[in-house]
Amino acid sequence: MDVEYDTPLFFHVMGYAANADRDVIDMVSGNPDWEPPEALRAGLHEYADLEPDRFQYPPSPGLNELRAEIADRRGVDREQVVVTNGAGEANYLAMARALERDAGSEIVLTDPVYPYYPGKTTMLGGQPRYVPTDDDGHLDPADVRAVASEETAAILVNTPNNPTGAVYPPETMAELVDIAETHDALLIADEVYDHFDLSGTFESALAIDADHRIVTNAFSKSMAITGFRVGYAVFPPHLVEDAKSRHMLVNVAGSRPAQYAVLQALRETGSDYYAANRDLLRDRVDVFTDALETAGAAYTRPEGAFYVMARFDGYPGTLANVERLIDEAGVAGMPGEAFGSSRQDWLRFALVTPRVEAAAERLATYFE
Amino acid sequence: MDVEYDTPLFFHVMGYAANADRDVIDMVSGNPDWEPPEALRAGLHEYADLEPDRFQYPPSPGLNELRAEIADRRGVDREQVVVTNGAGEANYLAMARALERDAGSEIVLTDPVYPYYPGKTTMLGGQPRYVPTDDDGHLDPADVRAVASEETAAILVNTPNNPTGAVYPPETMAELVDIAETHDALLIADEVYDHFDLSGTFESALAIDADHRIVTNAFSKSMAITGFRVGYAVFPPHLVEDAKSRHMLVNVAGSRPAQYAVLQALRETGSDYYAANRDLLRDRVDVFTDALETAGAAYTRPEGAFYVMARFDGYPGTLANVERLIDEAGVAGMPGEAFGSSRQDWLRFALVTPRVEAAAERLATYFE
Repeated sequence: MDVEYDTPLFFHVMGYAANADRDVIDMVSGNPDWEPPEALRAGLHEYADLEPDRFQYPPSPGLNELRAEIADRRGVDREQVVVTNGAGEANYLAMARALERDAGSEIVLTDPVYPYYPGKTTMLGGQPRYVPTDDDGHLDPADVRAVASEETAAILVNTPNNPTGAVYPPETMAELVDIAETHDALLIADEVYDHFDLSGTFESALAIDADHRIVTNAFSKSMAITGFRVGYAVFPPHLVEDAKSRHMLVNVAGSRPAQYAVLQALRETGSDYYAANRDLLRDRVDVFTDALETAGAAYTRPEGAFYVMARFDGYPGTLANVERLIDEAGVAGMPGEAFGSSRQDWLRFALVTPRVEAAAERLATYFE
Repeated sequence: MDVEYDTPLFFHVMGYAANADRDVIDMVSGNPDWEPPEALRAGLHEYADLEPDRFQYPPSPGLNELRAEIADRRGVDREQVVVTNGAGEANYLAMARALERDAGSEIVLTDPVYPYYPGKTTMLGGQPRYVPTDDDGHLDPADVRAVASEETAAILVNTPNNPTGAVYPPETMAELVDIAETHDALLIADEVYDHFDLSGTFESALAIDADHRIVTNAFSKSMAITGFRVGYAVFPPHLVEDAKSRHMLVNVAGSRPAQYAVLQALRETGSDYYAANRDLLRDRVDVFTDALETAGAAYTRPEGAFYVMARFDGYPGTLANVERLIDEAGVAGMPGEAFGSSRQDWLRFALVTPRVEAAAERLATYFE
């Protein structure tokens, strides 16, 4: 077996921006710049003084209380929940499960796509199969149905979506589950931006009663702790044991201080924390898109998640152009080509800096 | 592709012991019961108050300062070090790299074996090939040479060894590297118990200059923090980039609070901390083996690591007997059969409880 897979470009672009010989506004990756919940910091302090036995392996699928708290909030059985090393591992486990079922080797992905998905697919021995979204990032289930076959192992979608900002309506998700069931495939819904639905229309795929559906999530974005690596997957009962085995054989367990702090934060953080961050993001969307409008750029107004895609005439979304923009305008984004062939003319900007307005002004000045 | 793999028995036995209707001395898994370094607790407290940007993704292969500190101590280049989610992920990455080189699909393991190794091998699409050790756990390189072939992808050994307590001499390790090089295979040395060499003879495989050798390790045992999940692998330069890609695609990165605390502890903890824990373990070995001697049991005196294997006449090391011992003697060990066919008559006891003497007395009384 000889496997090749690409490293996503994020780290390259961030490194280039960090080494630039000028002030650069970093809008590359989805790292929140706002405060984590106060209870999360308190939880870490509390953990640091516990007895030595609390510093040892947590249960492999996660601290019991954390799994119970997640299960309770999501309306599922605790046994269906595997606490993972972020959404990254959650998606890895879900995709591995889909490909090991002897029910196809293709994973249906969207174009544009979150760049880790194709890499994971190839690493796991599967083949990506792309379905284009429309211009605003929405997915027509009929297009998915047209490519689905007995070769389909999984349909993997991300909603609210990175990079397009689309929030898929409940009817789309129900149809995707139906297509998965028709071909004995799995619908994997990565809902890591669920707390950043700006449209008010998001509904979790857990609302659909199905045994061919896996939902992945993490506290990385909702609690502004991408570095803690605490996520989870909710599996149908008949798939969870094998997923737990792979989790154990790859990672043994997740990191306990991080799980403990997240548990405290889950218990003690009110909805106002999440609402305030959504409001902050909504304001940034307004400021940034207003400036893009003034600059005459084409852009998407996100229904959710952290990102705005923009297109400037005669300035395609190549890596070379992204580097030029860092050097000459002092704004770092991601090249659209990193997300697939359909967005090669576009750039993606993450709204995770208080300097969104300054960034928009720099872009307007540069492209005027 | 249809993959099957077994879940190690540890969690089953620990659960059985926890639910027993009597006081049970837990000697099942290798969770240290002693204090972590003081600087580790201080590091967590310090981390908890940092700015939000320090709560975001660390570099995928680990915090720069942590990689540098590890590289410095191990005498390797920082670029060769990948900080992992414990030794579990380090071994997973090393084995994946061996199997993806298109240079064989067999992984040579010892019998007895650490139970995660065969599970990882099978999960990664490889075939385990077992070489028996001698009665005291030592490995004759000639036996490895006899089974090695162009089908050999890797030779994976653990020294100081779990479960036998053997410490492989430097000549053995040099021969294993030579065998690996002969067949374009990789020697993977899991040295997670390196700080618990009681024999004074241990030498890291890093001392051997070779590009067919990967060393894995973790702070789980040396700092008594199995639940933090901070480990690392040292790869030859030509193998490290692919390992980093897989690490990124599976986990994105490790958990940052844990890495930060480990970095502080590495910097500020003197050799007296490690020496004191070794002394504690040495005392426990004496107490436990003395009692086994009195009880007329056969046993191994470990040269390193945490474990003593014991054999009681007419009481083979089956799961049923382990459960009976929990219920009737109040001592929980691991069944020898979990470690392979050669130790089916044996039980393994982890010396990670202050009640080692009481446990030995319970065993002596039960078997007298």
